[in-house]
Amino acid sequence: MALVVVGSTAFDTVETPMGTEVDCLGGSSTYFSLAAHLFTQVRLVSVVGKDFPQASRKLLADRGVLLDGLEVQDGKTFRWSGRYSADMNSRETLHLALNVFGGWQPRVPEAFRETPFVFLANASPKTQLAVLQQMANPLFSVADTMDFWIETESEALLELLRRVDGLIVNDQEVKMLAKESNLIRAGRKVLALGPKLVIVKKGEHGCFVFSNFFQHALPAYPTERVVDPTGAGDSFAGGFMGFLASCDTLSVWNLKRAVAYGTVTASFTVEGFGVRAIAAASREQIERRYQDLVAFVTL
Amino acid sequence: MALVVVGSTAFDTVETPMGTEVDCLGGSSTYFSLAAHLFTQVRLVSVVGKDFPQASRKLLADRGVLLDGLEVQDGKTFRWSGRYSADMNSRETLHLALNVFGGWQPRVPEAFRETPFVFLANASPKTQLAVLQQMANPLFSVADTMDFWIETESEALLELLRRVDGLIVNDQEVKMLAKESNLIRAGRKVLALGPKLVIVKKGEHGCFVFSNFFQHALPAYPTERVVDPTGAGDSFAGGFMGFLASCDTLSVWNLKRAVAYGTVTASFTVEGFGVRAIAAASREQIERRYQDLVAFVTL
Repeated sequence: MALVVVGSTAFDTVETPMGTEVDCLGGSSTYFSLAAHLFTQVRLVSVVGKDFPQASRKLLADRGVLLDGLEVQDGKTFRWSGRYSADMNSRETLHLALNVFGGWQPRVPEAFRETPFVFLANASPKTQLAVLQQMANPLFSVADTMDFWIETESEALLELLRRVDGLIVNDQEVKMLAKESNLIRAGRKVLALGPKLVIVKKGEHGCFVFSNFFQHALPAYPTERVVDPTGAGDSFAGGFMGFLASCDTLSVWNLKRAVAYGTVTASFTVEGFGVRAIAAASREQIERRYQDLVAFVTL
Repeated sequence: MALVVVGSTAFDTVETPMGTEVDCLGGSSTYFSLAAHLFTQVRLVSVVGKDFPQASRKLLADRGVLLDGLEVQDGKTFRWSGRYSADMNSRETLHLALNVFGGWQPRVPEAFRETPFVFLANASPKTQLAVLQQMANPLFSVADTMDFWIETESEALLELLRRVDGLIVNDQEVKMLAKESNLIRAGRKVLALGPKLVIVKKGEHGCFVFSNFFQHALPAYPTERVVDPTGAGDSFAGGFMGFLASCDTLSVWNLKRAVAYGTVTASFTVEGFGVRAIAAASREQIERRYQDLVAFVTL
């Protein structure tokens, strides 16, 4: 089944211990799309400026990503630059220019509104809710969020949590949202706020899945060469949602497998600057790493 | 098969967000023994002062732990006190008195020297080497160490790594030992220093196993109630070594299962102050959590 993603498109300038790259194509919707298209058809809703190059558009279109929802506005595309710490587990923002992304009100094209799978990448919960209202009763909707929205728009976020099927956040965010320092209790608390599924990303430590029917943990893929962690979370979400949309049922087994595909997809992303490595990954390579991951975690 | 442990016995005063307890029975050899006895016979080599109470001796003896190697010296038993951070992921030492443990030269009783399984708890690598020389060709020997020895006695530690079969350390220690910030590369590097098996403990994030034949990762048991993390690492080692000593071969499957038993054993320890919770755990409870853990990680 098809999958709509609503999120940012950006150009990132990234400094990591492995080097620096200027104006890499990035943004949540880009990473998500380049991961999810490996499994299913992706319908993109995002915004760029007049400076957005044809080559970047082609990169997505060549992978079957539908760009009818890629709005082009007068002005410049969102730009971010940041620097990662030596162990790449933290980063600081050096410069941020929202440009056309600031104040953007996403409009889901008519042709996308019946799409059964929806991913609401990190944005104001009010914006995420407005997107959800444009969709015709999706089968499975998942949202991302961040500390800033938990602090500043908690009411809209709680409303969103009652409306979506799943939430993907990191370990600090789930603890902040639950006001609880134990991860397991925090996950359960957030589950009680509405979503049927809460996936907690822990970077190099893998992820944790909470639902009322099962609990699951999966280590990260054992990656020796991390070049640039940017976009790992959105690629995880893309692999997860993409695989799930390609399944015939939302069974526990398929949910667990989808988490493993998300993990594997993210492991490609971090091996290159920007979207370079994930854009070069094939479904065959994904399958090989999936088998490795299964062997790696099996008792 | 039987199992020798050589390590400290102590009384700990512990402050955690869950409360404070004064003079809890602790020390690496105690936590290890109370975990390992659930699987096999444990032979303890440690040192205490004249103040060591009969009740503590009885706690171990009642569980079949052989105390022929528990030396009683004039003076006081090792004492430590510390305070854990709000998330219990770090701690500071408030007070430390090595007492009789300072300068102790372990002497393995004649009757223990043919024991096939040996665990060398954290101590100076010179002391650990001296213990190993008293043993008659053990089948499987494993050592623990810490940052202090990596910094101050690296030569003796490298010698030890050539002699032991396995090393159990935490993630900071393995990175420090390998001078490498990527965990996977660090594990491989330490493997090249001699041991056949390197187990990296990551606390609430579980553990990682490196060998030349397989790689394995296991999340921690999903514990909602952490009361006192002291001794989790030694209990992990005790469960791991104890289960392995109870197996008929050192197969990959048994090694992986032993890691899971170590994980489960540690999950009991953290649920009470000092050794209270692990001392109360039954083999039946361990088996139930083992089954939970398998379900939790299975794809």
